[in-house]
Amino acid sequence: MKHTYRILFDCPDRVGIVTRVGDFIAQHGGSICDAHHHSDSDSGCFFSRVVVNADSLDFDIQELRLKFKPIADELDMNWRIIDSSVPKKVVVMASKGSHCLTDLFDRMRYQEFNCEIAAVISNHEDMRGISEFYGYPYHCVPIDKNNKSKGFAEVERLVDDYQADTIVLARYMQIVPPALCEKYQHQIINIHHSFLPSFIGAKPYHQAHQRGVKLIGATCHYVTEQLDEGPIIEQGVQRVNHSNSVEDLVRLGRDVEKTVLAKGLRAHLDDRVMVLGNSTIVFD
Amino acid sequence: MKHTYRILFDCPDRVGIVTRVGDFIAQHGGSICDAHHHSDSDSGCFFSRVVVNADSLDFDIQELRLKFKPIADELDMNWRIIDSSVPKKVVVMASKGSHCLTDLFDRMRYQEFNCEIAAVISNHEDMRGISEFYGYPYHCVPIDKNNKSKGFAEVERLVDDYQADTIVLARYMQIVPPALCEKYQHQIINIHHSFLPSFIGAKPYHQAHQRGVKLIGATCHYVTEQLDEGPIIEQGVQRVNHSNSVEDLVRLGRDVEKTVLAKGLRAHLDDRVMVLGNSTIVFD
Amino acid sequence: MKHTYRILFDCPDRVGIVTRVGDFIAQHGGSICDAHHHSDSDSGCFFSRVVVNADSLDFDIQELRLKFKPIADELDMNWRIIDSSVPKKVVVMASKGSHCLTDLFDRMRYQEFNCEIAAVISNHEDMRGISEFYGYPYHCVPIDKNNKSKGFAEVERLVDDYQADTIVLARYMQIVPPALCEKYQHQIINIHHSFLPSFIGAKPYHQAHQRGVKLIGATCHYVTEQLDEGPIIEQGVQRVNHSNSVEDLVRLGRDVEKTVLAKGLRAHLDDRVMVLGNSTIVFD
Amino acid sequence: MKHTYRILFDCPDRVGIVTRVGDFIAQHGGSICDAHHHSDSDSGCFFSRVVVNADSLDFDIQELRLKFKPIADELDMNWRIIDSSVPKKVVVMASKGSHCLTDLFDRMRYQEFNCEIAAVISNHEDMRGISEFYGYPYHCVPIDKNNKSKGFAEVERLVDDYQADTIVLARYMQIVPPALCEKYQHQIINIHHSFLPSFIGAKPYHQAHQRGVKLIGATCHYVTEQLDEGPIIEQGVQRVNHSNSVEDLVRLGRDVEKTVLAKGLRAHLDDRVMVLGNSTIVFD
Repeated sequence: MKHTYRILFDCPDRVGIVTRVGDFIAQHGGSICDAHHHSDSDSGCFFSRVVVNADSLDFDIQELRLKFKPIADELDMNWRIIDSSVPKKVVVMASKGSHCLTDLFDRMRYQEFNCEIAAVISNHEDMRGISEFYGYPYHCVPIDKNNKSKGFAEVERLVDDYQADTIVLARYMQIVPPALCEKYQHQIINIHHSFLPSFIGAKPYHQAHQRGVKLIGATCHYVTEQLDEGPIIEQGVQRVNHSNSVEDLVRLGRDVEKTVLAKGLRAHLDDRVMVLGNSTIVFD
Repeated sequence: MKHTYRILFDCPDRVGIVTRVGDFIAQHGGSICDAHHHSDSDSGCFFSRVVVNADSLDFDIQELRLKFKPIADELDMNWRIIDSSVPKKVVVMASKGSHCLTDLFDRMRYQEFNCEIAAVISNHEDMRGISEFYGYPYHCVPIDKNNKSKGFAEVERLVDDYQADTIVLARYMQIVPPALCEKYQHQIINIHHSFLPSFIGAKPYHQAHQRGVKLIGATCHYVTEQLDEGPIIEQGVQRVNHSNSVEDLVRLGRDVEKTVLAKGLRAHLDDRVMVLGNSTIVFD
Repeated sequence: MKHTYRILFDCPDRVGIVTRVGDFIAQHGGSICDAHHHSDSDSGCFFSRVVVNADSLDFDIQELRLKFKPIADELDMNWRIIDSSVPKKVVVMASKGSHCLTDLFDRMRYQEFNCEIAAVISNHEDMRGISEFYGYPYHCVPIDKNNKSKGFAEVERLVDDYQADTIVLARYMQIVPPALCEKYQHQIINIHHSFLPSFIGAKPYHQAHQRGVKLIGATCHYVTEQLDEGPIIEQGVQRVNHSNSVEDLVRLGRDVEKTVLAKGLRAHLDDRVMVLGNSTIVFD
Repeated sequence: MKHTYRILFDCPDRVGIVTRVGDFIAQHGGSICDAHHHSDSDSGCFFSRVVVNADSLDFDIQELRLKFKPIADELDMNWRIIDSSVPKKVVVMASKGSHCLTDLFDRMRYQEFNCEIAAVISNHEDMRGISEFYGYPYHCVPIDKNNKSKGFAEVERLVDDYQADTIVLARYMQIVPPALCEKYQHQIINIHHSFLPSFIGAKPYHQAHQRGVKLIGATCHYVTEQLDEGPIIEQGVQRVNHSNSVEDLVRLGRDVEKTVLAKGLRAHLDDRVMVLGNSTIVFD
């Protein structure tokens, strides 16, 4: 993978933003590999992701940030510049289910994700074997029904210790406390086993079976304090019919869950996801 | 199309139902062309659709019904026997939108549907030209916001006069009164412009845009007194992204709406849909 | 729709192309509404579509072209600048089948396409009624099996007379002669009823049935002298199974054909399609 | 899973086959759980899969076969009766790629397949670790380019020793010799990384990229002596675009490959696949 700097920003829309940024890069001899823009007419916001060939600049990312700051200030940007050669640090949280977890592990083997899996945290021991087989540290942190705060304090300590910048809930099945959601805003990715906003809450496949839908789905989204209400990154569906039991839906749903989680996570790790209110912009 | 009798029934599940019915047909020299069964474990109900070659029997459908009745009584069936050579009579209800209507008309030209379109009823004049071009009688029945009952009384009179057995709401945009829903139970087919149960009610594409979903959908269902809550016959989805405006969703949605309505209607007209509570069994 | 100028070009890839073009527009006070780029590593070609708000420039398209020419020459571009307010002129060619034709007509009603349908040409009379209902001139030009050149000379004369810039083969079923293909290079759009390159040539649904595939498809492509070998613009598929007869495939295929043709045509009319050898770049 | 006997047969089509079989089962007190039929009009063949509750019969499968034989002879059937409680014995063959293999392993953990994996055979060592982690015996049998027969003799010996009845080529990448194909007719399942019959042979993703298709696919089929020409069990596709490199197609293709292989294999293991010439009937 080419060494690049990813400049992501949003700012009030006006004429000449792209050219302003393009000129800035050109004047430093920089070469743009990729650029995506989105202008949101409702909010009047402009979103941009510009990828610069790192080797085309004769200074480092710190200096790039310093040089970019005046433009960012002038245009009133929210912005960040990310070094593509620094893989994100991911903590994966799992429960007893293996399908999303082993799917992620296999994709790591194929280097589909630009990240390191720092550790796997689970409230059960079931996934220790496969996690350690792949060489990932495993922490079993039970969540006591009557005192969840103790368990999540330990989870938070681990995430902090690993300096994780992304937390993946790979069918974790526990509700993350609001404080943790806020601390890691737009950094916690969940896979919900329904086509949101249908069937929010518990047992969505039972709800889907009950309602007699002809398609089931899965939704990858950022976790917010509002359960199953966070910004949606990716969704997928799978056809079902009257002959499918709830167990069939659960089985068929696994395929969608793991695929949708992988797509959403990949977009996040490539810094292709930007958040606008409760929606996302996902640049291809 | 081969001339057949379609025997549809549901009854409490027990051993030997299929054989009992098969023997009955065989003993009269009948030949089965097609047979589908479904056993619903939750309700303990058995559903069946058995298609008999009409020419293989040396009596008519009235006598078939008489001969079948003792078995039906014995097995405690809800049942009906339908002559495939008698096309259903359909009244299509439309508003100003043309996409579902012209799609249905073109499919009629290809003989995709085993039905006659008896008439088109609309609360606007817009679709008169195209309906009459295809040779279908057109009735404009305005629905007065402040006195809907008058309009719907006229609609009901027309439907009755045409002896329609199926009413298709091809983006009709008006809420059908409960009494009419009840009178034509499981005979009124609607296309709802969302992936139900998401975005029930008005302006679902606006709701979808607001929520930032990555797929939009459409749902073909039987109309019941509960708005958008009736048994689902067919659903479809279409991928969208952040760059799509509400107008784009409306445009992309039209493709799903017309396709899903056509699939659902075709299943209904072929008597392949059976209703179980608020769900459907759709035999392929 | 906003009044814009669409600048499309391809040129040898090098550093600074986007900025060079961006600066050019900025220096004339122009505002960029939309921009897409693609760098093809195999060929070393750079492709770009830049959309400028026409009202942001204080000169017209002729002058824009004059001013742009030096940059285009310098960067060795193939280029064109298109005025979005000038709808393309389309001649639609049809045979006896109605599904693609009526689908296009209905989409015209919804203003999905930025074009005028100048005329419909067919080798049969069947589609005259519906075409004239929608107000489109209709020309029946029979194609004599033993002297196709006479018919196609007439077709060419009509297309020329209408000053058409796009020819849509909406299931036209006749092979367009090489000279006409060449004259209207990348302006003739065909819908082929298979998932190319599978089942090239005649009766693809029969071939698909014979081979026992589990999905059928349709392909929208530019017509070249090589039958069914031109650059692909859009493709779609539809699930089928063992119970489907050839007639079922034909029926199910119609839905894919009309949808895929509409998508491909829309991309063409919006000047979102660029050709690279035998492939296309389709900007979303 | 309920203990059942699966009666599969095909025979020349005639009136009364289903009833004849139904009566036979009923007369022995048997209860039918599931039944699917297909009448192929081209060949005049009738295909059937009838599932009988094993506990409803007071004799074992051997006696069932004995009792069924006279009917089978009378109706000129190809037939087999399978005990659902006897899982099939599967040998999985792999190369260096892990995605199909680990996907199968995870599905085994969820008991999605009614089978035992007897062993994994590969021409490389790469997959030994993960196979043994899951507890499956692993055999590395190198295939010498210049003397393939030696390697395949060893493969055949192993398959025979394990008494495997199903061989899964999970991206095995070697061409199985004709004699082995014939010996295990309709028992060797391959996943081909294209939407057959497109891109037969080597490097299909390169071919797809070269041709500029907008969808890529994968095909699960029975292996025959004709490379990539065997009866198709299942297919799937994935959307791609001009920005995708060959490497992207390979990555995106992996998702389709593993999903399609799993679906096809599941149908095979449930004895839901019947072969008619070069096509399959796959009962849902």
